[in-house]
Amino acid sequence: MPHSVSVFGSAGFTGALTARLLYRHPSFELRAVTARSDVGRRLDDLYPHHRVPLELEELDLDRHAEVDAAVVAYPHGAAAPVVAELRERGVRVVDLSADFRLHDPAVYGRWYREHQAPELVGAAVYGLPELYREEIRGASLVANPGCYPTASLLALAPLARAGVIGDVVIDAKSGVSGAGRAATDKTHFVTVDENLNAYGVPRHRHIPEIEQELAILGADVRITFIPHLVPLDQGELCTCYVTLTEPDAAEGLDALYAEAYADEPFVELTTTPPGVRDVRETNICRISVHRDDRTRRVIVFGAIDNLWKGAASQAVQNLNLMLGLPEDEGIGPVRASAREVFR
Amino acid sequence: MPHSVSVFGSAGFTGALTARLLYRHPSFELRAVTARSDVGRRLDDLYPHHRVPLELEELDLDRHAEVDAAVVAYPHGAAAPVVAELRERGVRVVDLSADFRLHDPAVYGRWYREHQAPELVGAAVYGLPELYREEIRGASLVANPGCYPTASLLALAPLARAGVIGDVVIDAKSGVSGAGRAATDKTHFVTVDENLNAYGVPRHRHIPEIEQELAILGADVRITFIPHLVPLDQGELCTCYVTLTEPDAAEGLDALYAEAYADEPFVELTTTPPGVRDVRETNICRISVHRDDRTRRVIVFGAIDNLWKGAASQAVQNLNLMLGLPEDEGIGPVRASAREVFR
Amino acid sequence: MPHSVSVFGSAGFTGALTARLLYRHPSFELRAVTARSDVGRRLDDLYPHHRVPLELEELDLDRHAEVDAAVVAYPHGAAAPVVAELRERGVRVVDLSADFRLHDPAVYGRWYREHQAPELVGAAVYGLPELYREEIRGASLVANPGCYPTASLLALAPLARAGVIGDVVIDAKSGVSGAGRAATDKTHFVTVDENLNAYGVPRHRHIPEIEQELAILGADVRITFIPHLVPLDQGELCTCYVTLTEPDAAEGLDALYAEAYADEPFVELTTTPPGVRDVRETNICRISVHRDDRTRRVIVFGAIDNLWKGAASQAVQNLNLMLGLPEDEGIGPVRASAREVFR
Amino acid sequence: MPHSVSVFGSAGFTGALTARLLYRHPSFELRAVTARSDVGRRLDDLYPHHRVPLELEELDLDRHAEVDAAVVAYPHGAAAPVVAELRERGVRVVDLSADFRLHDPAVYGRWYREHQAPELVGAAVYGLPELYREEIRGASLVANPGCYPTASLLALAPLARAGVIGDVVIDAKSGVSGAGRAATDKTHFVTVDENLNAYGVPRHRHIPEIEQELAILGADVRITFIPHLVPLDQGELCTCYVTLTEPDAAEGLDALYAEAYADEPFVELTTTPPGVRDVRETNICRISVHRDDRTRRVIVFGAIDNLWKGAASQAVQNLNLMLGLPEDEGIGPVRASAREVFR
Repeated sequence: MPHSVSVFGSAGFTGALTARLLYRHPSFELRAVTARSDVGRRLDDLYPHHRVPLELEELDLDRHAEVDAAVVAYPHGAAAPVVAELRERGVRVVDLSADFRLHDPAVYGRWYREHQAPELVGAAVYGLPELYREEIRGASLVANPGCYPTASLLALAPLARAGVIGDVVIDAKSGVSGAGRAATDKTHFVTVDENLNAYGVPRHRHIPEIEQELAILGADVRITFIPHLVPLDQGELCTCYVTLTEPDAAEGLDALYAEAYADEPFVELTTTPPGVRDVRETNICRISVHRDDRTRRVIVFGAIDNLWKGAASQAVQNLNLMLGLPEDEGIGPVRASAREVFR
Repeated sequence: MPHSVSVFGSAGFTGALTARLLYRHPSFELRAVTARSDVGRRLDDLYPHHRVPLELEELDLDRHAEVDAAVVAYPHGAAAPVVAELRERGVRVVDLSADFRLHDPAVYGRWYREHQAPELVGAAVYGLPELYREEIRGASLVANPGCYPTASLLALAPLARAGVIGDVVIDAKSGVSGAGRAATDKTHFVTVDENLNAYGVPRHRHIPEIEQELAILGADVRITFIPHLVPLDQGELCTCYVTLTEPDAAEGLDALYAEAYADEPFVELTTTPPGVRDVRETNICRISVHRDDRTRRVIVFGAIDNLWKGAASQAVQNLNLMLGLPEDEGIGPVRASAREVFR
Repeated sequence: MPHSVSVFGSAGFTGALTARLLYRHPSFELRAVTARSDVGRRLDDLYPHHRVPLELEELDLDRHAEVDAAVVAYPHGAAAPVVAELRERGVRVVDLSADFRLHDPAVYGRWYREHQAPELVGAAVYGLPELYREEIRGASLVANPGCYPTASLLALAPLARAGVIGDVVIDAKSGVSGAGRAATDKTHFVTVDENLNAYGVPRHRHIPEIEQELAILGADVRITFIPHLVPLDQGELCTCYVTLTEPDAAEGLDALYAEAYADEPFVELTTTPPGVRDVRETNICRISVHRDDRTRRVIVFGAIDNLWKGAASQAVQNLNLMLGLPEDEGIGPVRASAREVFR
Repeated sequence: MPHSVSVFGSAGFTGALTARLLYRHPSFELRAVTARSDVGRRLDDLYPHHRVPLELEELDLDRHAEVDAAVVAYPHGAAAPVVAELRERGVRVVDLSADFRLHDPAVYGRWYREHQAPELVGAAVYGLPELYREEIRGASLVANPGCYPTASLLALAPLARAGVIGDVVIDAKSGVSGAGRAATDKTHFVTVDENLNAYGVPRHRHIPEIEQELAILGADVRITFIPHLVPLDQGELCTCYVTLTEPDAAEGLDALYAEAYADEPFVELTTTPPGVRDVRETNICRISVHRDDRTRRVIVFGAIDNLWKGAASQAVQNLNLMLGLPEDEGIGPVRASAREVFR
């Protein structure tokens, strides 16, 4: 008996992909896809490759909230009120926005805007399963992480837990789908093609999210984080430069990471720096850790598909956990060596 | 003593490139660049790589028409009234729009809209120098050809003049800059990247322009013309499939083309099919003619840069001719073997 | 109880993708992947995104032919002897090469080389399921079609069967994966990027294959076929220009196509020209038919993923049919409206 | 009276572009282009867009060294002996390899191989005109900088001179032309397209070159330097993360840079992070400096075209200086505000 689910805000890239994953998921029945633009268009007209033959509908909570679970793919700020309504009606929610990622509404207020539902913040679990699997299992509201935090935190978590991070610079690179569906000068093909540039310098909104989680893990640092736009569609690479608290802390790096991710179905450790093509259209994060003996710095790479593990497929991973389903159901291959564990 | 010149409509791709070419042209002084959007912005802010340190101004004919020559880069329909005003004030004009390309305003009316300055149509010369060099030299109004007609007509002219064209199919492919600067779903990087599709099927507006010129050359045919969008910035390839009036007409093809273009500084004949990279950022058209002995059909390729020979640099080539300047001045390299002729 | 299968020639693009599809296929057990280069490397090292944790082995028929079925992904000419050995041992074979596509070994000899196993040619079925579904069900040797013939024949079959094709020009465009894995000047990123050119002019080897099948369908014509290379990875578009035997034959085109493909799970008819992105990483062919009233010509577009429907996933579709499995098992989504039929 | 010049090693990307720039340079006469592969082919056959109608010749110093100046575009290690021969014959040389960039042959030995002409090292001037303009003017041997050092050093020089650099991380991104002309798995279109990855971790050979020059400028630091490959042709961005010796040192950053580069014709300072498209096919380096108040770190971006300012056009800039020609002759536009100074 499948769980009923609605996706709110399906006209954007991440909402539409979430709808596709849930439409084909053996344990879900996708009841409705809503949108604020393109109402009345079929999703498989707007996104032919997703092949979801449902019509985008205007939000009607009385009908659309009659479901077991919901994914909200609204912009930051607009999500909170909808999430609050859904929670009042007892619907389990994964929220793709930033609205419930930061534990302190005041911090949210400084980086985004005044919070629209601060009373709900305490109930939300940060939806990075590799860090909070057990909490997510029992949660009714999960805040899906940002794409950059996902790749950065998975790359840095073992070092943070080991208490050896003294300082971090994260140089991030993302494909253009990360900029969203809005057609602007910045997303015009002729602007992006054969180009490469940083943006959001020096105060990108993913900073407090990364710092919050690093602190919880054991690294109370202020990070430098600079994202760049690269001419490709889907794919994201975070290159993390870590100054250790003490140089010897770099001993046993490989073992540290191997142990940390031994049982993780969606983390692959590689000896050479990962390429984003290797994780395209998967829920997998590839991580590679390197020590620079000259500078005693550690460099860690985290590569994901920004629309999948960075948003939509991670949302489904969270839904699977929340509803007691196999964690990898409906979200494609897990790393080969983990197959026996999860299949 | 340089000629003064203004470019009207410089905020778009072709107007901005025309401004760049004229700003660096040794025989012109670029007096003004006007625009209907982005007024007040500097052109080198909007298009850094053009490095034209002029501010986009709102149209003021009293000031901007005080020049020897003008290039108008307005959309179809909007160009005609401005061109008419400029001509009244005695300014020589190259018009980049379609407004003066078709000799019959009624045909223009069927494919575009009612003509706004039909009285001027008769005075305009079709600005393809390889076909109308002498007429352009004395002209005060030149209609710059469309990008597809430029590549197609240069590819087909020798056959058309020889009277051997029985039927033509033109399969055209263009980079995204051909779609213009407007940011839409169709020009969004994520739409175009890794994609490929036809558009304007089956009645693209360049059809009557190509047919008009083929008829004048000697081929009174109805063509099939289908353009495609390919994931690159600048570059255009027209693959022309010609059924001959009689099969033997294919003898001596190479000689026919060699003779036709022996003295043309901006036409290169190649034995292998040309790539658009070979002509990128040049005023050169590469042509390659092939005979298929099995079907007795002739295939001719014409490759150009749609923004250069397909628009801006051809406009400068026309200006050079109109003002008695060396034809290749300010528009980059000519083909090697023509150097002694023109330099 | 899964069927055992080996893939011969898994180091190339199509062999590797076939291995991935069979490794994840619920009704197959992938026993071995062989290769002539890279022996000893793991497939998930060579192609990380396929995630097939098997080692490439040197060919050893005594071991590798102990299977129910095999896919051979060898170059033309090299495939025939291996296929012959496999057939002698009673293994069902899908051959990805051209060796068994042409019914007449003499024709094969003219376009390729002397045939290495002419005695087997008569036993092979041409593996385009939409044309030969019933024959494939009982076949032990299936010749998987070329990528261009797949898209072209699906686009043209309804017209050919209706007997209305007078003449055909096929202008084809393919992504670079179609050129194979060999690293050459032609596949170097810097050669292909921002480029676009024709190749194989005017005698590409897919011509006799297309003509053979068109003739069987009812169109005994000599075609003009010109392929082009475009700067994208996977995707192929065939633009087919058809001159009809009589102009009125264009009546009822839409109904003709709708009827022809009403029950096909992997054919989607569209009213607008298809983009290759719409079929990326699927076994689906998108077809769109248009009439040009001016020239009375019909234009049909066929879009596929050259590595999937053009090779690997079509091979699996054929294997499914040969072994009595559901036709779409293991090869992703079928078009929405066909779901009730095949699922 | 033009200076005669030969380019040694013209079959590669940088040698071929140098040949093009010198062939069109008003003060040079390009006498010969030599190569170790492709001998006998014309350069405009190998690189059509360069339009240099000269044949690649096998090296013959007796003929090819009869010139005023030479550019050597050989691989590291192979260059030194040829440079030595040329210097013996009194030819002025710009060497594009790393062979004469490092002042200490022992350091060269550790990062490359045993030096082949250590006696010449002392005579070479490091060819970054913005740092060594006067020394280059009188030099007979100039070591053209690496592409990454060019962008990094121009970005960091003002801070280094001010003595405020405590620590540096350089995250660099380069287009594929930087990997050279060799066709390998790594430069295959299908490998690079839609991909993004680091390479040369953690000991790229440009490290000692950058450290040497930073030390001379006043920053005696060990740098962390990680280059990445991005899916574009030409273009390079170095993102430099600087920890200052003291936090207050970040006051007056803009003025520091404005003063440092006030008279530089090929350096453009921008307030927003530069894109590589803005400097494509130019000798210009765009620099943008930012202060992160949260971390008190300074971030500096340096963007160049790796084949132009990163190699070929910088070589011509050096030749211009060595021979007393206008510094910008033959290498395209200078930044607008510098025009009056240098033209």
